[in-house]
Amino acid sequence: MVLLDGIATSAQIRKEIAAAVADLKAAGKKIPHLAAVLVGDNGASLTYVGAKVKACEDVGFRSTLIQKKADITEKELLEVVYDLNRNAEIDGYILQLPFPKHIDDQKILLAVDPAKDVDGFHPENVGRMALNLPCFLPATPAGILELIKRYEVKTEGKNCVVIGRSHIVGLPMSILMQRNDYPGNCTVTLTHSKTKDLRAICADADIIIAAIGKPGYVTADMVKDGAVVIDVGITRIPDPSKKSGFRISGDVKFDEVAPRCSFITPVPGGVGPMTIASLLLNTLSAVKNKA
Amino acid sequence: MVLLDGIATSAQIRKEIAAAVADLKAAGKKIPHLAAVLVGDNGASLTYVGAKVKACEDVGFRSTLIQKKADITEKELLEVVYDLNRNAEIDGYILQLPFPKHIDDQKILLAVDPAKDVDGFHPENVGRMALNLPCFLPATPAGILELIKRYEVKTEGKNCVVIGRSHIVGLPMSILMQRNDYPGNCTVTLTHSKTKDLRAICADADIIIAAIGKPGYVTADMVKDGAVVIDVGITRIPDPSKKSGFRISGDVKFDEVAPRCSFITPVPGGVGPMTIASLLLNTLSAVKNKA
Repeated sequence: MVLLDGIATSAQIRKEIAAAVADLKAAGKKIPHLAAVLVGDNGASLTYVGAKVKACEDVGFRSTLIQKKADITEKELLEVVYDLNRNAEIDGYILQLPFPKHIDDQKILLAVDPAKDVDGFHPENVGRMALNLPCFLPATPAGILELIKRYEVKTEGKNCVVIGRSHIVGLPMSILMQRNDYPGNCTVTLTHSKTKDLRAICADADIIIAAIGKPGYVTADMVKDGAVVIDVGITRIPDPSKKSGFRISGDVKFDEVAPRCSFITPVPGGVGPMTIASLLLNTLSAVKNKA
Repeated sequence: MVLLDGIATSAQIRKEIAAAVADLKAAGKKIPHLAAVLVGDNGASLTYVGAKVKACEDVGFRSTLIQKKADITEKELLEVVYDLNRNAEIDGYILQLPFPKHIDDQKILLAVDPAKDVDGFHPENVGRMALNLPCFLPATPAGILELIKRYEVKTEGKNCVVIGRSHIVGLPMSILMQRNDYPGNCTVTLTHSKTKDLRAICADADIIIAAIGKPGYVTADMVKDGAVVIDVGITRIPDPSKKSGFRISGDVKFDEVAPRCSFITPVPGGVGPMTIASLLLNTLSAVKNKA
């Protein structure tokens, strides 16, 4: 059994990005510049955005945090987005969702220039992904593909079962794993809350991608010997023995499933650390695409 | 066994569209106007475009055929597209593909305003389809959904196997059948040339959508009793006994498969006739969306 180590892989990717930035600098070229739009002062959102800004600084990117008050109007926020679209200094930007309730998240997302949409959430990027055209992939799916590539996990002709059809993980993974590409060329089954007999479907899978947010949902009897298991679940479980008061649980019962697997991601330390690395890769490619 | 009759259904849809156009006319509102862009004088392309133009006339739409010589440059053709994007009189338009070899089809497609892309080929429409946002669906998938709806075929919780991952049929059908909607909520398995043991996968399917263009590929042993079979294949087979010199064959061995089915589409007369009806529906909705 091989652990798909997201911490080591993401550190390696950051090192490669930092080297690429140093090359750009040495050549007198533009340094990647990521902006983040945050509305209000929600603690979790501040933490997430803070981590992204810090990651930018660590690899030598420029970054700009645009923080607006919670009472900003939808129209004013649209103007912020239009300004970012026009601003040639900004290569890519992210919207830290959710916005306050009086703002239609979807409306703001649709206003983002797809060429700067490094979160890969705009429909044009989703469509390009489906059509296998150049695009920004959403961070979590991109991180999973990167893990598969770097560990040289075989995918062609494999039965891949995706659990969960969310727009940010399950659905894009189902599209990506069937593409005529590597990673890809899997026979993909996308399962969800309406699926009957999920246990039997999983038991026949060569690759399982679990993204439903139900702690410990995937048990050993659902996994065949030699399977590859990717655990996207990150659920906080109250745990008084921890300083933070909680521990993180994945969708997979790791202890009983891992011994059966050829490859498996731990939680934490698997898919999670890959997402910010993906965002950095997208921002770097935003600059390269323009050049 | 119930035949999913595309001829009768498409005739019914055209009648409904004609009534809607009459209503628009009576109310003094804009009449839907579809344009088609044809380059060169390929016989098959002329036939297809001609059928679409005639279908428009039959339901009371306005239509414009823009025919350009085969030696038009890519830049000139882009100008044609930009003109159509700007022209408020044109509600939607289609590009009759393939264009001559010196023109990059993809480049022209990407220039189409997604709001006028009634063929549903632009990445923004593909992405909107995946995200279940309002969009133009590609004609063949839209026609299949319409047949399923009008015959009230149950889809929720069913195992749906799609054979073939083409960008215009297989892939969009796999996305549409999994959506949390009706038709939809299927557990979808998308299969293709790299799939192992396709026969066994099909034998477990409640719904089979065959779109690979291999005449008679789906045989009785691949279909379980009571299954729904949608045959998207349209292959011309030489047949001297026919006046045209050929007959049309689907991907399904109809005679042996049909007795096992709860519903099945014949070929010809199933999915085929639905595609032009879908194009008309898209054009009508292009007008309604603006209003």
